[in-house]
Amino acid sequence: MSGVLYGVGTGPGDPELLTLKAARIIAEADVVAFFAKRGKPSNARAIVADRIPPGVIEEELDYPVTTEEHRHGASYRGQIGDFYAEAATRLAAHLDAGRKVAVLSEGDPLFYGSYMHLHVRLAPLYPSEVIAGITAMSGSWSAAGLPLVQGDDVLTVLPATLEGDELIRRLSDSQGVVIMKLGRNLPKVRQALDAAGRLAGAVYVERGTMAAGFSLPLTNKPDDDAPYFSLILVPGWSTRP
Amino acid sequence: MSGVLYGVGTGPGDPELLTLKAARIIAEADVVAFFAKRGKPSNARAIVADRIPPGVIEEELDYPVTTEEHRHGASYRGQIGDFYAEAATRLAAHLDAGRKVAVLSEGDPLFYGSYMHLHVRLAPLYPSEVIAGITAMSGSWSAAGLPLVQGDDVLTVLPATLEGDELIRRLSDSQGVVIMKLGRNLPKVRQALDAAGRLAGAVYVERGTMAAGFSLPLTNKPDDDAPYFSLILVPGWSTRP
Repeated sequence: MSGVLYGVGTGPGDPELLTLKAARIIAEADVVAFFAKRGKPSNARAIVADRIPPGVIEEELDYPVTTEEHRHGASYRGQIGDFYAEAATRLAAHLDAGRKVAVLSEGDPLFYGSYMHLHVRLAPLYPSEVIAGITAMSGSWSAAGLPLVQGDDVLTVLPATLEGDELIRRLSDSQGVVIMKLGRNLPKVRQALDAAGRLAGAVYVERGTMAAGFSLPLTNKPDDDAPYFSLILVPGWSTRP
Repeated sequence: MSGVLYGVGTGPGDPELLTLKAARIIAEADVVAFFAKRGKPSNARAIVADRIPPGVIEEELDYPVTTEEHRHGASYRGQIGDFYAEAATRLAAHLDAGRKVAVLSEGDPLFYGSYMHLHVRLAPLYPSEVIAGITAMSGSWSAAGLPLVQGDDVLTVLPATLEGDELIRRLSDSQGVVIMKLGRNLPKVRQALDAAGRLAGAVYVERGTMAAGFSLPLTNKPDDDAPYFSLILVPGWSTRP
């Protein structure tokens, strides 16, 4: 009898934003797996650290060490493909042994999550279930108390890595917008928001639901420093009754 | 001392997809409020029915009775505006009395939720906190086990109420797409997906995380019947390593 693969969303950071189901699956797991950068603690594991049962087998899946420049080259794609294949093989051994394997995934597993790479390799072969998690964007607009979209609004989620012209075009073509992956792209994003006439409404959220989190209108943010855990929200709902 | 307003996301249907925080806020509430269509049970209340503490004050906020034809007229806008103003006044009386008021909201409160109408009226006047919930779309792609977006993908959330040409244009311009508010719009949506070359990947999800929920490729769905609790997912992530 084979085990079961679970993709478990841990939510955006606040340990209380875990679902009841995710808490149960973690408590019942034989194996808890999570991705991490080598030498750094796993963000997903940190969120649920207090809930990992004693005696459970932990599988830390360490990303290969890369630099930003490598990320679009062919050798990076080969290296990362090998990494996911090896990670899947490690988990398959536990599934073959009949174990319940919970793969922790920050936010929601199937929404920009690394778990997706394991899911496409293992879900065709083993019973699997995905437990939805609160996304970083949901946690962020909730923490900021910012109504985002209503009625017939269109919502667009954009990576800040897009070209400036492309950002302007899409910002001009959607009621609600979420811009992720800020980092060093914030100056470009700020210019695009201004060019699209959306700067005034834009809200910057840093570490959304985490202990040191905060939000402020982007026009009040004096610098262009933005960590990985930050995003920009542009609210729709311009026609409030 | 005034009370506190809580917008509480109940998630998409499965009572286990409530967050730990939402469960705590409901357990601690003095007043539990929820929207309903007159004479019908509230969906949000049904999800958390087992958790509503005995003796709590319940405030059922009944939408004014309308027909689909009325929804875009000026009299509808006036009527619904009056309704939200009266609902806010009812809750303000509890907040003035120092009570903790939990407003239940299906899915996520600030993502197409009716709670938003109360938030904009009451949050400027009283302490408030919004508890993010699992959205219907998150619950649906998780239930379907369908990886949606990855890496630099753009995600677009579209109401099926848009014109056919507009649907085609936007379907052709985004990697991942979620189409909500299907109902009688499904034939138009099906044609638009076909015209945009996205029909083959489209997945229909009905009552996502509810007991009788299911999903199937849209091309395998023989009819155009689609209830309110259904949506279509078009996955991105075409460049898997």
